[in-house]
Amino acid sequence: MTTIDERFARLGTDHAPGQEVRQARADATADLRGEPIPGTPVDFSHGDVNDNAFAPTPGAFEEFVAGVERGGSQAYTEYRGGGELRDALAERLARFTGAPVSGADELIITPGTQGALFLALGATVNPGDRVAIVRPDYFANRKIVEFLGGVIVPVEMDYLSRESGAGLDLDQLEAAFKSGVRTFLFSNPNNPAGVVYTADEIARIVALAAAHGVTVIVDQLYSRLLYSGNAYTHLRAAGIPGAQVLTIMGPSKTESLSGYRLGVAFGATHLIDRMEKLQAIVSLRAPGYSQAVLWSWFNEPEGWMADRIALHEAIRDDLMRVFAEMPGVRVRSPQAGSYLFPRLPKLGMPLHGFVRALRVQANVVVTPGTEFSPDRTDSIRLNFSQNHAAAVHAVRRIGTMLERYRAEASAMADAASGAR
Amino acid sequence: MTTIDERFARLGTDHAPGQEVRQARADATADLRGEPIPGTPVDFSHGDVNDNAFAPTPGAFEEFVAGVERGGSQAYTEYRGGGELRDALAERLARFTGAPVSGADELIITPGTQGALFLALGATVNPGDRVAIVRPDYFANRKIVEFLGGVIVPVEMDYLSRESGAGLDLDQLEAAFKSGVRTFLFSNPNNPAGVVYTADEIARIVALAAAHGVTVIVDQLYSRLLYSGNAYTHLRAAGIPGAQVLTIMGPSKTESLSGYRLGVAFGATHLIDRMEKLQAIVSLRAPGYSQAVLWSWFNEPEGWMADRIALHEAIRDDLMRVFAEMPGVRVRSPQAGSYLFPRLPKLGMPLHGFVRALRVQANVVVTPGTEFSPDRTDSIRLNFSQNHAAAVHAVRRIGTMLERYRAEASAMADAASGAR
Repeated sequence: MTTIDERFARLGTDHAPGQEVRQARADATADLRGEPIPGTPVDFSHGDVNDNAFAPTPGAFEEFVAGVERGGSQAYTEYRGGGELRDALAERLARFTGAPVSGADELIITPGTQGALFLALGATVNPGDRVAIVRPDYFANRKIVEFLGGVIVPVEMDYLSRESGAGLDLDQLEAAFKSGVRTFLFSNPNNPAGVVYTADEIARIVALAAAHGVTVIVDQLYSRLLYSGNAYTHLRAAGIPGAQVLTIMGPSKTESLSGYRLGVAFGATHLIDRMEKLQAIVSLRAPGYSQAVLWSWFNEPEGWMADRIALHEAIRDDLMRVFAEMPGVRVRSPQAGSYLFPRLPKLGMPLHGFVRALRVQANVVVTPGTEFSPDRTDSIRLNFSQNHAAAVHAVRRIGTMLERYRAEASAMADAASGAR
Repeated sequence: MTTIDERFARLGTDHAPGQEVRQARADATADLRGEPIPGTPVDFSHGDVNDNAFAPTPGAFEEFVAGVERGGSQAYTEYRGGGELRDALAERLARFTGAPVSGADELIITPGTQGALFLALGATVNPGDRVAIVRPDYFANRKIVEFLGGVIVPVEMDYLSRESGAGLDLDQLEAAFKSGVRTFLFSNPNNPAGVVYTADEIARIVALAAAHGVTVIVDQLYSRLLYSGNAYTHLRAAGIPGAQVLTIMGPSKTESLSGYRLGVAFGATHLIDRMEKLQAIVSLRAPGYSQAVLWSWFNEPEGWMADRIALHEAIRDDLMRVFAEMPGVRVRSPQAGSYLFPRLPKLGMPLHGFVRALRVQANVVVTPGTEFSPDRTDSIRLNFSQNHAAAVHAVRRIGTMLERYRAEASAMADAASGAR
């Protein structure tokens, strides 16, 4: 029997994005080489929602204020969210994804997409159930399944050595489904790699799920931030049986509304029903007043979204150019979303030490690859939804730090100092 | 092995407060007797936070706006909440409860007190663990333990037949602890009965917990709304080992800030650490901007809280007078909080039918007693944090409905109509 201490030891958050302040208490100066590298601090662990980077959608705050003014009817909605708002969102999400959604029965509003993910897995995973998870993928996926007592069946994704598609190992996925997997969870575009599944990849996932009766939960958090020249296939509109699919989205990223903590899940009626029951005991409801902010979602000013995408695309292209000049770094250009997931050259120190050195010496915060796959000890994730100039300069500092800490440099430094 | 369908069947929310709109789809007119009784609709399932009843704390909204203006630093706090705010709250809560709190290590901000309860139990209950729960008590307590795979050990509370104290069966509690219970969860003041544990009752709980190494989670959500002539004993300041106690509070009730979904838990460091890890996968963090509203908590304008308590006490006394005139109704006057939990005379229909009749015919929403204890098929809960006049009139309508549906009336009606 696993003790509760052991269960929580596996739920570590020390290296999770946003928790760096808690690490800072440990001795942060051991093993450091060279002098600090000056530059504007950039926290790539999450997007910058301030005015000099990507501020929240115009009109969002005003919707919040209108919600407060409505008073009790906004504070106390159904646990799954206000009825009129759900109807409006269902219509907009049906249009966006290309398949109908019922606001009454097929949609729930949650505290952030994190809340939607937890409820979705809580509604599908019984202790002992086998759950297929992509490697790499969003770090919480693994942790939620473990907390619920599920058994993780990893499926590898070769995102790096190709020009299009996500590169999920579909044969491995089929083997996983044949081994008794009941639930498959993946993000599209992939977090951290920013790659988008092709129509063929989605079609194969649909066929496998249908053949094996697997419920598929797809996290489409970044699907609106799609760069030029790319196509996006919505799983729910690709022929999968309606009772086997849940889609998760939210306005926290592209729209910079993370401070309001809002997400939605839509799809299979029986799963939405279970999620509401679970929400009742986990957090009761999505924040009452904050829900009102969703009136502004998929309802942005004309041209605002196109502009936001173009601005991100320009940052992406500049950062890709900077990374391209770094010997030994491999990174694929993201097709959607605001994540870069470069693979680093071999370092003379463990990844977590390098990440700490970046923070202490270069004022750059990144998320270690191990949060996304236990074997990604060679990668870091950057959320480049930042001030453009500051992000470019910060990535240059990462380059300088790589020169300082790469394995060959370490060997030379050790030889020079007479260390073993 | 319990299937996930069976697990969720036990998590029913159809009769939970706030979910009445989802019941309304069922045929609501069967078995009804007599004509509608006119009157201002009153929803006693939760408090009324509108201006004609109990509006949110002055200054709360302004703190929210200031949080939005701070931008990213407020949107992205540590998962356990912003550091400065935690320090400030720790100091205020230490003063209120009479024992020190460390903002750095002993306090977490959560999405509502519901979120705090879920995380607290998630941090203490392993599948198969025995958990003592009071009957009656807040309906989610039982459901959370069941979802986590814990085993409920009920402890009865005789709240009705006494003048002071909560009336928990302390011998039954001791037997429960001896039977291997590891966690004890209770609300003080009790939800639904509004009774407050005496210093002697708290001392006995402390002694038993210490002797048996039981972790005690105490939900003190309503502890600020204490009526004249009553004393309150904070468990955490009553000599219990610090590693064995968690206290849960929040500004949703007395302060009418439920629309912002905020709660706090404070106490044992190792449990707060676990709760933060769990929060990371359940909802990431308490709403970023909403957290700022807590700057107004325990910092209300001079005299505001005393006034709010006096207004509630006046409603309580008027409602008690109305109930006292109803034959066969037994209700104890609450010592704190805004709940009344009357025991009704024998009805000629099941409790859920009567509750539905109240809603359909009298425009009065109440919560059935079965949400708080499976054997409380004879009681209803009212949150009397309402417009004073509307609440008094609505309770009079409950009296009229009781005359219509009490068992003797039913027998007479049946006899008159020739039914068996």
